[in-house]
Amino acid sequence: MPHSVLVHSPATLSNLGCGFDVLGLALQAPYDAIRVTQTAQPGVRIRHLDPYDLPTDPARNVAGVALLALLRAVPEAIGFEVEITKGIRPGSGVGSSAASAVGSVVAANALLGNRFTKMQLVEFAMAGEAVASGARHADNIAPAMFGGFTLVRALEPTLDIVALAAPPLWVAVVHPQIEVKTIEARKVLPATVPLGLAVQQWANVAGLVAGFLTADYDLIGRSLADYIVEPARQALIPGLAEARARALAAGAIGGGISGSGPSIFMLNKTEAIAQSVGAALGSVFAELGVAYNTYVGPVATEGARVISES
Amino acid sequence: MPHSVLVHSPATLSNLGCGFDVLGLALQAPYDAIRVTQTAQPGVRIRHLDPYDLPTDPARNVAGVALLALLRAVPEAIGFEVEITKGIRPGSGVGSSAASAVGSVVAANALLGNRFTKMQLVEFAMAGEAVASGARHADNIAPAMFGGFTLVRALEPTLDIVALAAPPLWVAVVHPQIEVKTIEARKVLPATVPLGLAVQQWANVAGLVAGFLTADYDLIGRSLADYIVEPARQALIPGLAEARARALAAGAIGGGISGSGPSIFMLNKTEAIAQSVGAALGSVFAELGVAYNTYVGPVATEGARVISES
Repeated sequence: MPHSVLVHSPATLSNLGCGFDVLGLALQAPYDAIRVTQTAQPGVRIRHLDPYDLPTDPARNVAGVALLALLRAVPEAIGFEVEITKGIRPGSGVGSSAASAVGSVVAANALLGNRFTKMQLVEFAMAGEAVASGARHADNIAPAMFGGFTLVRALEPTLDIVALAAPPLWVAVVHPQIEVKTIEARKVLPATVPLGLAVQQWANVAGLVAGFLTADYDLIGRSLADYIVEPARQALIPGLAEARARALAAGAIGGGISGSGPSIFMLNKTEAIAQSVGAALGSVFAELGVAYNTYVGPVATEGARVISES
Repeated sequence: MPHSVLVHSPATLSNLGCGFDVLGLALQAPYDAIRVTQTAQPGVRIRHLDPYDLPTDPARNVAGVALLALLRAVPEAIGFEVEITKGIRPGSGVGSSAASAVGSVVAANALLGNRFTKMQLVEFAMAGEAVASGARHADNIAPAMFGGFTLVRALEPTLDIVALAAPPLWVAVVHPQIEVKTIEARKVLPATVPLGLAVQQWANVAGLVAGFLTADYDLIGRSLADYIVEPARQALIPGLAEARARALAAGAIGGGISGSGPSIFMLNKTEAIAQSVGAALGSVFAELGVAYNTYVGPVATEGARVISES
């Protein structure tokens, strides 16, 4: 068995417009590169090889908490050293904490001869994610683990994740550097929703799932509308409406807020369109004088995976 | 072109558990047999060849209103005589009015050289359905028109119906002879729902659509739970919980209230299981001393269709 493993763990889109808290998609880029090395010394030690100000105390770090959860299921007296190079900017809304949590447990599992199933690894990673978001959820973890398009059908009483086929799609994401904390983004959500709106929302969820599974791009586009969460959160992301308008004009199929924001994603049929859409998204924030990053890349068919081992 | 056409128009399940107001499924039986004959005399004349006490005034009859809507789009000065043999009991919750509305416009369209698209026919049929239910909706009309498994993604601003593949499934339905009026069944619905429950519901909608499209029977079964509508309506249908319990014990995949009730449906993998499940469903109402009918049959892959013409 290897002594040290390097894992590539992808950014992810969660919610996907109408599918708040349940749908997600893996991206090929950006990603975190996570090296985990097995040690005789018990416990977890974390080092960040990047400029972001993230905790290195394992009990306060998503990768640390995920690995500690995994270690509790391991009888051997071992530990892990972790080096995390974050390609995903924390707080951007494309699954930064999920990528670190998933990547670290996938690496540790490789060190342990892959004794755990992916569903067990999801449970460990969820423990890590809870540190960052304050809630137990898997809408970014599921696509980071399985790749492609995923549904978290239930967390309780039994975790039920369904990995689903996705057609070829190119994603354009803009991350305007506005701070939107996940906990704040949750506070603006309504406690209750009118039944009629809920029906429209689940009609779109049905349409989106059907659009993915039948590779019907028009249906995907028609179904991306979010009647409940985006109206509550749009005030947190100035430029959102204009960004969508320009992206659609540039040929995007559709999109919305990524996760709890502030990133905005758009799905596209081709790389060329996705590049134009990325530029269109960026132009809105350039005009607003808000710093931003854009990412353009395909949907990733694989989740977190071992790149090298020694 | 034919002078007289006989159409077979199927019963349908709407809602399908979690998919309130948007999902539906066509049954091979029961069905309405509808003969429409073109006349030189303008307008619509209706004759019911069955024991049910339904209006024959075309302005108050679902088939009549649907045909009058169709005639308004026809420049010729023609009319229709309609003979309806209802195999579907009115008020049973398996799309009785939708079957009559759809079957009559499909027949009229055949008489007119099929000049209207199925989507146009759905619009005419919806005008008819509104007479029976008091609301414009298409969750029974869509499967009656297209067959198989259908999603009504939107009624406004543009009617958007998606016909989806369904795996081989056998349906068992029990119709306990309790009166549940659609309008009454709508009144017990909550005006608003907690966001968390709405999320669980659309997770199940996503699972159900994915289960159908990937022929994953277990996923279909797990996803059939309805957290919003069934809890509100279960008091209208004594025996529902016991019927479900016995059906699952007899091997059903899952099920729930059909439409606004009182019928209860269960989906099954085989005809033999569906027969046992039908008997189990019936046994509950036999013990309660409530008269009932059961139907067992496969999902119909086709919607309303011409059987003979002359």
